[in-house]
Amino acid sequence: MTVHDPKLAASSDDTSSGDKIRISEIFGPTVQGEGALIGVPTVFVRTGGCDFRCSWCDTLYAVDPAFRADWKPMSTADVLAAVKKLSGNAPILITLSGGNPAIQPLGKLIELGKKDGFRFAIETQGSIAKDWFADLDFLTISPKPPSSSTDFNPDDLAACINAAQPDGVLSGPEITLKFPVRDEADLMFADHVRKLHPGIPVCLQPVNTTPAEPHPDGMDGVDLDGLTRRYRWLVDEVTKRKWFDVRVLPQWHVHVWGNLRGV
Amino acid sequence: MTVHDPKLAASSDDTSSGDKIRISEIFGPTVQGEGALIGVPTVFVRTGGCDFRCSWCDTLYAVDPAFRADWKPMSTADVLAAVKKLSGNAPILITLSGGNPAIQPLGKLIELGKKDGFRFAIETQGSIAKDWFADLDFLTISPKPPSSSTDFNPDDLAACINAAQPDGVLSGPEITLKFPVRDEADLMFADHVRKLHPGIPVCLQPVNTTPAEPHPDGMDGVDLDGLTRRYRWLVDEVTKRKWFDVRVLPQWHVHVWGNLRGV
Repeated sequence: MTVHDPKLAASSDDTSSGDKIRISEIFGPTVQGEGALIGVPTVFVRTGGCDFRCSWCDTLYAVDPAFRADWKPMSTADVLAAVKKLSGNAPILITLSGGNPAIQPLGKLIELGKKDGFRFAIETQGSIAKDWFADLDFLTISPKPPSSSTDFNPDDLAACINAAQPDGVLSGPEITLKFPVRDEADLMFADHVRKLHPGIPVCLQPVNTTPAEPHPDGMDGVDLDGLTRRYRWLVDEVTKRKWFDVRVLPQWHVHVWGNLRGV
Repeated sequence: MTVHDPKLAASSDDTSSGDKIRISEIFGPTVQGEGALIGVPTVFVRTGGCDFRCSWCDTLYAVDPAFRADWKPMSTADVLAAVKKLSGNAPILITLSGGNPAIQPLGKLIELGKKDGFRFAIETQGSIAKDWFADLDFLTISPKPPSSSTDFNPDDLAACINAAQPDGVLSGPEITLKFPVRDEADLMFADHVRKLHPGIPVCLQPVNTTPAEPHPDGMDGVDLDGLTRRYRWLVDEVTKRKWFDVRVLPQWHVHVWGNLRGV
């Protein structure tokens, strides 16, 4: 089992210097394809490097050090300038994703971007807490379930939630717990973890087990029928168990654009 | 052009007597497939009868008087009992849909249901305002665009919004304007109407132009590729125009279950 390994996080920091942000890709405007913000126009800032190695990772190019040469250390100002170029200077939701963006020094980017009217969402697995979580507009934490072959540390998750809410549960960003689910064991994991943090909205989504790019046309090899079947199964399980406070959402972008990058 | 016709609404009332609700179907629990509540577990209460005849209506069985024999007048208590039977007595979001549910006497159902912990959402076209809109948790208004071949009355829409917010914009349900979009003219219509009501969240969704049931397996004849292409087009248009405050969402249930009823 490959576990959450602080050494991975540390080693993946060694190409960034000082307050540079290690960038895998910046793209958009497009729409968020999953989670509570599904369908919301956004520019993605994807950072390189991750402290996890999920068995079904669909963005290995932002995780595996083999791709490190593709990751570019950029200053906060350069990242914001790149986003503004894509959005035509109009304020838009900026989605910080990865890899695990919590590894990176993103506090200053959030501070500067908000001054210009940008809103910020992050997608992270809940393994590393940062003070600047409190300055986000949306914090999506995806605790990785058993099928990812990683270990879950409840204290790390609690630290992330506490970092986002320094002044109590009504402060800080809107938090969502978003669980990728492949099977019954994953479902039980999601139920266990959500009960540790009652009151935090929960999304479940079928895991995309299709390997990441490269695929020439993005759609090649993506098992859309399998994803849709798993979605139906999830709805059946959730309604059967009367989890009426849990949302079930697809990775809609996979259905629309496949595993293609940059959409 | 078939227009909004009060006579249609009046004539479609004549099978219900007193405070009976004319029901086309009650089904669930499933998840909401579209709009701001996409993915949220819900039981649908679909009423029969409509004051509109949209060219691409996908629920004619709840609209066309030819199906009137299938509509059952039910008391408020019977409707609530049917929902509770489906939900196993657990509180769940009840989605009032149609047809146009605003034709029906639903105030009492909302009042009684809320006492038992149920939440209420409605899907209506914004042609008929009711005082009980203010008691809803979620009000989704879908003004019908040019491609529906119906006429739009801005005063009726304003009346619906005002009815929902008797004590000002911070009172009443969460309101969303949800526009089905088939083409450029529909897009311009959505832009025009949303500017009449700034501050109200907006969803755009590709029109499903597949005729309604009956299809033996639900999926037969549904042009999923066409819907997905139209979704991509919508994202392109929205991002090109920098409408970054507008959400673009699919009719996800059509992708999962086709035009099948009861899901």
